[in-house]
Amino acid sequence: MNSKKTILVAGGDLRFVYTAHALAADFEVYAAGFPQQIVPFSDVRLTGAVGDGLPVCDILVLPMPVSDDGVLVHAPFAQQALSLHKLLAAVRQDGIVLGGAFGKAAAVFQDAHIRTGDYLKEEELAVLNAVPTAEGALQILLEELPHTISGCRILVLGFGRIGSRLAQMLHALGARVTVVSRDTAELARAEMAGCSAVSLSQLPECVAEFPVVCNTIPARVVDEPVLQRMAADTLVLDLASKPGGVDLEAAQEYGTRVVWALSLPGKTAPVTAGEILARTIRHMLKERGIC
Amino acid sequence: MNSKKTILVAGGDLRFVYTAHALAADFEVYAAGFPQQIVPFSDVRLTGAVGDGLPVCDILVLPMPVSDDGVLVHAPFAQQALSLHKLLAAVRQDGIVLGGAFGKAAAVFQDAHIRTGDYLKEEELAVLNAVPTAEGALQILLEELPHTISGCRILVLGFGRIGSRLAQMLHALGARVTVVSRDTAELARAEMAGCSAVSLSQLPECVAEFPVVCNTIPARVVDEPVLQRMAADTLVLDLASKPGGVDLEAAQEYGTRVVWALSLPGKTAPVTAGEILARTIRHMLKERGIC
Amino acid sequence: MNSKKTILVAGGDLRFVYTAHALAADFEVYAAGFPQQIVPFSDVRLTGAVGDGLPVCDILVLPMPVSDDGVLVHAPFAQQALSLHKLLAAVRQDGIVLGGAFGKAAAVFQDAHIRTGDYLKEEELAVLNAVPTAEGALQILLEELPHTISGCRILVLGFGRIGSRLAQMLHALGARVTVVSRDTAELARAEMAGCSAVSLSQLPECVAEFPVVCNTIPARVVDEPVLQRMAADTLVLDLASKPGGVDLEAAQEYGTRVVWALSLPGKTAPVTAGEILARTIRHMLKERGIC
Amino acid sequence: MNSKKTILVAGGDLRFVYTAHALAADFEVYAAGFPQQIVPFSDVRLTGAVGDGLPVCDILVLPMPVSDDGVLVHAPFAQQALSLHKLLAAVRQDGIVLGGAFGKAAAVFQDAHIRTGDYLKEEELAVLNAVPTAEGALQILLEELPHTISGCRILVLGFGRIGSRLAQMLHALGARVTVVSRDTAELARAEMAGCSAVSLSQLPECVAEFPVVCNTIPARVVDEPVLQRMAADTLVLDLASKPGGVDLEAAQEYGTRVVWALSLPGKTAPVTAGEILARTIRHMLKERGIC
Repeated sequence: MNSKKTILVAGGDLRFVYTAHALAADFEVYAAGFPQQIVPFSDVRLTGAVGDGLPVCDILVLPMPVSDDGVLVHAPFAQQALSLHKLLAAVRQDGIVLGGAFGKAAAVFQDAHIRTGDYLKEEELAVLNAVPTAEGALQILLEELPHTISGCRILVLGFGRIGSRLAQMLHALGARVTVVSRDTAELARAEMAGCSAVSLSQLPECVAEFPVVCNTIPARVVDEPVLQRMAADTLVLDLASKPGGVDLEAAQEYGTRVVWALSLPGKTAPVTAGEILARTIRHMLKERGIC
Repeated sequence: MNSKKTILVAGGDLRFVYTAHALAADFEVYAAGFPQQIVPFSDVRLTGAVGDGLPVCDILVLPMPVSDDGVLVHAPFAQQALSLHKLLAAVRQDGIVLGGAFGKAAAVFQDAHIRTGDYLKEEELAVLNAVPTAEGALQILLEELPHTISGCRILVLGFGRIGSRLAQMLHALGARVTVVSRDTAELARAEMAGCSAVSLSQLPECVAEFPVVCNTIPARVVDEPVLQRMAADTLVLDLASKPGGVDLEAAQEYGTRVVWALSLPGKTAPVTAGEILARTIRHMLKERGIC
Repeated sequence: MNSKKTILVAGGDLRFVYTAHALAADFEVYAAGFPQQIVPFSDVRLTGAVGDGLPVCDILVLPMPVSDDGVLVHAPFAQQALSLHKLLAAVRQDGIVLGGAFGKAAAVFQDAHIRTGDYLKEEELAVLNAVPTAEGALQILLEELPHTISGCRILVLGFGRIGSRLAQMLHALGARVTVVSRDTAELARAEMAGCSAVSLSQLPECVAEFPVVCNTIPARVVDEPVLQRMAADTLVLDLASKPGGVDLEAAQEYGTRVVWALSLPGKTAPVTAGEILARTIRHMLKERGIC
Repeated sequence: MNSKKTILVAGGDLRFVYTAHALAADFEVYAAGFPQQIVPFSDVRLTGAVGDGLPVCDILVLPMPVSDDGVLVHAPFAQQALSLHKLLAAVRQDGIVLGGAFGKAAAVFQDAHIRTGDYLKEEELAVLNAVPTAEGALQILLEELPHTISGCRILVLGFGRIGSRLAQMLHALGARVTVVSRDTAELARAEMAGCSAVSLSQLPECVAEFPVVCNTIPARVVDEPVLQRMAADTLVLDLASKPGGVDLEAAQEYGTRVVWALSLPGKTAPVTAGEILARTIRHMLKERGIC
């Protein structure tokens, strides 16, 4: 249909291929920065030669983070570098650029007076991404542990979006989950979800009883005093983004096994992660009156 | 022990008797505004003659709402009126007065330079009270419906503290729950909890399929256009506080069965409601360095 | 349609009205033994004058139990007695009579060489009826207890169809459920469902810790030694059919509060109970090649 | 303590090391058929030189299956062959031999008039093993699928011990589970657990809608007509023991991805599997009056 808006998805990991595919139900979708073999969808048109062949688009979708240097788009699968300025040239003046954490790239679009929107600031995306993140964490636990989740005493640090999803999932599988938080309301919520609750200040005292510790708090909470009191073969799974919640040096000193898992949605469930991003993009466009 | 702080619980419904009892584990507790027969605890001392016999206390706990007129405390069980000014006289100058929604009563303590704290503003209390509220709602549904919760299509309006607890509880019992909300993030959370999700703008279109509608949104969302499209024997349970979420006049016109349930915690689970309040009070005192 | 088989539902409580209504989707359905006002369905024809006006039917559905004396059908709502012999005369020679616990009534049909089938022997019915039974039990607990189910220590005796449903439901609501059974495999199942498990032989030792005891074992397991050790205000809910699992005399002596709940499906969820029976009847007819 | 009974655990996979360790809390435990490095427990004594050094024991624990040929014990970790006759010589005349599926090995003990017991016939073991089996299946699904379990349409064939555990686990994780069975009572149980239910005869008609099919029925139910109708990238996980439930030839022809997972408890959760076996052995010994 001619009246369909045009979207260009440029760069990003595998999930962006599925984002492009999911958006193709309602938009005319182009993708740049991917080799043909990982885009097996006839409804997504690959634009191979970057720069020349780029279609003019209403909406440009960029990855997370958008760019490391403010010049090139983060595009791990691209055979040729994707320059922000060439992509900028492909966007209509009344179009919009959606990305996750623009950083230095923001200026490029600001200077050109092109609207931008950061999908990482959408609560909906964060809420939905907690599911693939928690499932990715579960997979790691199932792979690493020589015993079942059922019956296992597990400590979950934090009861935000990811912590609450993970704790509830583990509880549903029969684990005996204890949630640690600074916040009395979070602790109350954890108890309502069938978990035990312990104040963060008590962490050093209680950590020795738990063979598994999953951290979701974005702060150095698994520090030396905590690591020191862990039992010998405790598994620590850190889900906090950089710089992470575990003192890795101290962990090494004590011989603690630490798995630091980043960007789980895109790695373990790229299809779902892509669909979630497409859903959020749709709502962002709707709220801004673009479609 | 002499070093225990002294608490006076004055007025309120049955839950305040259990609050007093729960606080008696750590404090010296007096209660005013209750007949002997509903205070069967040896660790709570009743102060019969109000005014004269009132003990000097470190902490005064008042009901919710504190007072209707700013003169007398809300005390449905009291045989004699409890005057705010006489109670004020019982509080040490460096003491604290805790109540729920002070309203006109605030001035009494302000003028006397006595600290106050409103427990209804504590997130913890609201979170924990969602449990007795949701169980009270469940009891009403079990009593009113001639069929099981299991397998029943139920619409829950709102997915805040009460809506989310109620929806998850009904889902766990096998109901097919659909959550209605304005907010995309709330809808995402509802889906994560196993419910279907529908935007509030779609409510009139979908309401006819549901024999049960539970409202938790504090706004007139069950209005004439919604009521008009409900099936004949739909049960509407309104958990929103005054003025309620249902257009009662229109409901009467259409012959819709509406149960408007207020203050469920205190009514259906006074013991738990009392313990929850005591827990919150403990945390409030701790945060303020009082104990 | 002329090709529809004819069913006569005769006697029984309110659930049989809903059974008749549910069967009317596929059969030509008559009902006897009910006043007009409790049969508000245009697809069920009431046969007022018993004996004369009875339609010839392919399938006769009788209540549970079928009859107390082998002469009259159990029909609490009937204004005139329903005689088994008159009903027998209404059934085609190649028809079938379905009932629950025929007892003395069996001979009537045997002598006439009419096939019978006992739906109470169908595993499916027993499995499905556990849902309304457990919900009925839940309603009683919510009504009787002054605290929430969530957080409450509850003892469930037996982990058969009803015990397992009830225990899982209470666990899902946040109760701390301990299951008691003689059978190691049942105890293993209970642990898998998130409950604690205790051997029946340990019941007297552990009962004092539980404010609520729900019995589903059809044997006198709550006997004097158990009652003696219960805490003062324990609530005992007995779901075992006659003669029940509680020594009521001893309970009275110790002042224990006992609620003995019988036939909960028909009482608390007659619509669902009726639909369940209709579903079972359909499967029985299908297995026997009748439709 | 001298009064402790002596157990010899001979042969088997890693789980038997943990069985030996778990039994060491109450027995004097020896193990044969394992190298030192996989038995890091000071409470289990390894008997290196088989035949000579074997201790006289009250209880001999053998693996599952006990033996392939009736001569040597199944002992994948053993550096020297473990002969049934030498092990027999180590058992007291009033002792007992516990194993899983004795087969040809049964005669050895019968001829010597030594009691045997087959733990694979214990319902408790089968019930408890469903947990590590279902968790192992879950791990495979999480590893194989590019999307989340949450929201995924999954078909579970069979609702016995493993099927029911798996279905409930997947449902708890947010999957939309449909259970297939021949048995109306099993289908009723599946519906009660929040799943949809479909008769086995309908399998070919419905299979195309499901990207994931998990089989637990020990019969060739995933046959050519079923495979033919599956969608292109369906994942089939077969949990049925040999000869399996999938027509592998037909699957290869249609290019269907099949994972056939056997002995999951011992592989994915050897610690838990070992503890489960020890628990069952304890109960078997208790029932036989041995301890």
